[in-house]
Amino acid sequence: MPRANEPGRTVSSRLWDLLFAFDPNNTELTLADLVRRTGMPHATARRLTLELVEAGALERTSDNRFAIGLPLWRLGTLAPRAETLRRAAQPFVEDLYTALRQHVQLAVLQGDQAVIIERLSAVNAVGLTSQIGGQLPLHCSGVGKVLLSHSTPAFIDDVLAGRLRRFTPRTIVDPAELRGQLASCRSTGTVVVKEELSEGAESVATRIVDGRGKVVAALSVVVAAGSIKLQAAVPSLVASGLGLSRSLGWRPGIPIRTS
Amino acid sequence: MPRANEPGRTVSSRLWDLLFAFDPNNTELTLADLVRRTGMPHATARRLTLELVEAGALERTSDNRFAIGLPLWRLGTLAPRAETLRRAAQPFVEDLYTALRQHVQLAVLQGDQAVIIERLSAVNAVGLTSQIGGQLPLHCSGVGKVLLSHSTPAFIDDVLAGRLRRFTPRTIVDPAELRGQLASCRSTGTVVVKEELSEGAESVATRIVDGRGKVVAALSVVVAAGSIKLQAAVPSLVASGLGLSRSLGWRPGIPIRTS
Repeated sequence: MPRANEPGRTVSSRLWDLLFAFDPNNTELTLADLVRRTGMPHATARRLTLELVEAGALERTSDNRFAIGLPLWRLGTLAPRAETLRRAAQPFVEDLYTALRQHVQLAVLQGDQAVIIERLSAVNAVGLTSQIGGQLPLHCSGVGKVLLSHSTPAFIDDVLAGRLRRFTPRTIVDPAELRGQLASCRSTGTVVVKEELSEGAESVATRIVDGRGKVVAALSVVVAAGSIKLQAAVPSLVASGLGLSRSLGWRPGIPIRTS
Repeated sequence: MPRANEPGRTVSSRLWDLLFAFDPNNTELTLADLVRRTGMPHATARRLTLELVEAGALERTSDNRFAIGLPLWRLGTLAPRAETLRRAAQPFVEDLYTALRQHVQLAVLQGDQAVIIERLSAVNAVGLTSQIGGQLPLHCSGVGKVLLSHSTPAFIDDVLAGRLRRFTPRTIVDPAELRGQLASCRSTGTVVVKEELSEGAESVATRIVDGRGKVVAALSVVVAAGSIKLQAAVPSLVASGLGLSRSLGWRPGIPIRTS
């Protein structure tokens, strides 16, 4: 990836470098933080940051830091793959959460990651660090395996040929074993993942399908490992997933596509 | 406002012109739509649109339109005034909705508008067109009056000196009458609005205060006009508002600031 201060960088890409310097652990940054995180000259960073404030993409906080601004948030609410799906899913996610009192997550595919677009978390459920807008790896999270298994063969080959990080001793990193699990998930629509991403956490995930049979998202429940809660969660998760898919226009008999 | 094809426009401002061409009624646009809505030359619009796709700010839909992309949505989730507040408010908004089964809205001040950052709506409640990310006028909506009444005197003067649009025969557009209503709201923290924004809808709104006594948001319930539901909603709305304010660090005795 080219550095932000290379002469060939466009103004546009520098603006995005500044915006993408913000992350869930750094929602408020000083100008000095922005200079350090982007590698831009101070004068350039200052000029472009002020342009971003002018446009409403950034706003100043009360202690003279910068944060993502409300106009940019409003633009984000127009993203069909996030907010439209989030609104459709809200009643199903809430009902599932009310029934189970465990973490419930909805995620979509973005690049080689699963992005969480909605989640409800019980205060006393197993600890998880991810949040709305956060990313999960495809090869070892419940939602990730569902999304990966319904991708094109070429995309699956690419992911399996890449680096499969071992997060715990139980993370499946053997491509052949992973292919078997993905084939099973493609056939049933559901996958159970036991402590592959973090020790102490198990999840079950199911596919969400639209009216054209396209898998557009994955819905999951995460529980503490070793409890009997996982078996109890499967039927309600599958029912909620089918309900959400039906609300998106899917009907039994519409064939599931890989895309 | 300068046209987008003026020579003096910066690349940065042209990029935002393209992004702000999207709105709740136009979440998917063709390149021709973007050219028409921004007034940019076709070649410029095409080049900058492709840069926005490259950056992840836009994405192509299956029918070759453009839409706000998931990476930009993810950036939006980092906006402290939207998602952080939305997360804190979620249990209060949900409980209020469960108790009342009416529209419940949370809004913050942005420029001279109230921006809805969270809402839950009953299927059979009075019809409303606004949605998450949408805007409401300050002078005649419940949340707007709460936010306006806790603004600085100079800001209030500006708004009252501007054009006060009459949405219905009952919209209060007389500055003196409006000042009286704002003073009352500043003193009680709550305002009742009857059919000022749309005929057939009444609302009650209350202020949300943070640990420093700053009014950071307004919470409202919207019901059908003429029903007895409004009186029933007031105590629960006030209680929910106080609960949310306490969760943000406010305690009885902390003076309310106008900012």
